[in-house]
Amino acid sequence: MSQLKNDRYLRALLRQPVDVTPVWMMRQAGRYLPEYRQLRGEAGDFMALCTNPELACEVTLQPLRRFELDAAILFSDILTIPDAMGLGLYFEAGEGPKFERPLTSMADIQKLPNFDPEVELKYVMDAVRTIRKNIDDQVPLIGFSGSPWTLATYMIEGGSSKAFTKIKKMAFSEPQALHLLLDKLADSVIFYLNAQIAAGAQSVMVFDTWGGVLSPSAYKEFSLQYMHKIVDGLTRENEGRKVPVTLFTKNGGMWLESIAATGCDGVGLDWTIDIREAKQRVGDKVALQGNMDPSMLYAPAERIEQEVQTILAGFGVGDGHVFNLGHGIHLDVPPENAKVFIDAVHKYSAQYHR
Amino acid sequence: MSQLKNDRYLRALLRQPVDVTPVWMMRQAGRYLPEYRQLRGEAGDFMALCTNPELACEVTLQPLRRFELDAAILFSDILTIPDAMGLGLYFEAGEGPKFERPLTSMADIQKLPNFDPEVELKYVMDAVRTIRKNIDDQVPLIGFSGSPWTLATYMIEGGSSKAFTKIKKMAFSEPQALHLLLDKLADSVIFYLNAQIAAGAQSVMVFDTWGGVLSPSAYKEFSLQYMHKIVDGLTRENEGRKVPVTLFTKNGGMWLESIAATGCDGVGLDWTIDIREAKQRVGDKVALQGNMDPSMLYAPAERIEQEVQTILAGFGVGDGHVFNLGHGIHLDVPPENAKVFIDAVHKYSAQYHR
Repeated sequence: MSQLKNDRYLRALLRQPVDVTPVWMMRQAGRYLPEYRQLRGEAGDFMALCTNPELACEVTLQPLRRFELDAAILFSDILTIPDAMGLGLYFEAGEGPKFERPLTSMADIQKLPNFDPEVELKYVMDAVRTIRKNIDDQVPLIGFSGSPWTLATYMIEGGSSKAFTKIKKMAFSEPQALHLLLDKLADSVIFYLNAQIAAGAQSVMVFDTWGGVLSPSAYKEFSLQYMHKIVDGLTRENEGRKVPVTLFTKNGGMWLESIAATGCDGVGLDWTIDIREAKQRVGDKVALQGNMDPSMLYAPAERIEQEVQTILAGFGVGDGHVFNLGHGIHLDVPPENAKVFIDAVHKYSAQYHR
Repeated sequence: MSQLKNDRYLRALLRQPVDVTPVWMMRQAGRYLPEYRQLRGEAGDFMALCTNPELACEVTLQPLRRFELDAAILFSDILTIPDAMGLGLYFEAGEGPKFERPLTSMADIQKLPNFDPEVELKYVMDAVRTIRKNIDDQVPLIGFSGSPWTLATYMIEGGSSKAFTKIKKMAFSEPQALHLLLDKLADSVIFYLNAQIAAGAQSVMVFDTWGGVLSPSAYKEFSLQYMHKIVDGLTRENEGRKVPVTLFTKNGGMWLESIAATGCDGVGLDWTIDIREAKQRVGDKVALQGNMDPSMLYAPAERIEQEVQTILAGFGVGDGHVFNLGHGIHLDVPPENAKVFIDAVHKYSAQYHR
């Protein structure tokens, strides 16, 4: 068993005592860093970085050299699974991810092939192994996947969406087709995340970016049910250590009780919920991750520090808080503002951990 | 005092007894109707319809000829106020509304001119008067405005936005400038809605489309505070009848208590909250409007009817419910599906009103 030099992140997710609140940022490896932009320019494009384990490792480690982060997160895309299923992922400038062959029918869904994470997505597992070799046990490595519902939105819409017309048409008029897809995706996510864990990911996170566009009952039926299945199917211990799992549904603040009831270790919060309220509602069951508005990183240093203190005071005394932004860091944030944020979490949180 | 033939909508908002639950649809006058598309094609564009009182009246009345709706809503745009302030509203195909001269500084905000709704926005008041003349007291006419925060997002971003970068930068680094703008807008909205009421609007609604992108404390500071000011400043009785006011914040389900505490009559719900929960939380203070997912109108008739029944059962026995979609009807919904929805509300709701 490797000896992690800093295990605050894992301890906080398991609601064990820590000296200060751990902090990381969604999309901490990314375009706001000049060293990332340079490497991406050299590599050619985003997928060239993702599919090259050495480059993915380098990009994953870049923010750790600048900031006192308490976790690293695998540099990859949430849409690797549908790509491995043959849908043909590509990126168009300024348009976000797209698929060459989106799903249009039950027949398409029935024909979806199985895949082996160590074959079709070997580049991801190699990236995990390369990062673990190079990170030198400084901090834990987080693996991740998109949620079945979120993956399905891209697979059926063919890309990003505003109204989610096609998938909702399917959900409301052909639910058995969508359930077949979601169930296949849940199995695939389990397979994929367990492979990441076997390769060395020390915690995993499921990103349900689009669960919040559903009604409460549709959320339970089409998104949460399948995340629950994933939680049940994950490897929860490896290398002699617990492997905590975090679920994050953007705009899911009203459904925290249901999310916490899946048996996950941590629940991610976006910035539209007061963390004080979230702790009152589910803080006895799960750790909470969040939840500063990423746009606060545009503010002057004093304002950022003030917001960090407000959120820390909201969570209050106790363990089980991983500080994070409520969503990914914006690409035009000055890196020095990210440093102010990260340092402030450590500086002001000691008083809440005795 | 005119004698309304159908005053269910007004009575429900005042939580008075009704025979069946009233129903209308946000954007009920719009592109999903072939007769609308024809008139818009003839007129040239969207603003040509808005600024011509006869055409705006015709478009407002079109859905009433097809469906048993319990209210009409003025056909207009939420961005008329910034246009009257000189920002130069225009529409680019597929891009949504834009402004030629967005606000970039405190100086821009200080220079914003006052306007007189009966001069610069006389076309709106003429539309209200024309509709009232032609609607023949069948159902009440709803007037509306965007909320100060929502108007400000377009005025500062220059159009639609995903991350709201510019306005959040201002909110977090130059809050006094934004507060000056929001206060001016609140005064303008009061002036504008009171003019609509004087011209004949029998109820008014404030659309806070973008309040839900804020944190709870920022929502209170930058959006709700100014809607509260508007509620306090509105004419609440006219033509010998109460003029109910409804506030709608999209993605505001977590903040219903605060919204209800403004003293408004009705609170609009999007589809991400269970109406049963909403009624438990604030049903003793306000009426509730909502809340079927507009995408449910893509479903087969039986599924639409089933969803209507679920929502009616969720609200349960009692008054104070205006049935609506949780947001605007999508432009590619078949009109016959809207009819199924509207008829189902009347058909299945009688049992809840005794």
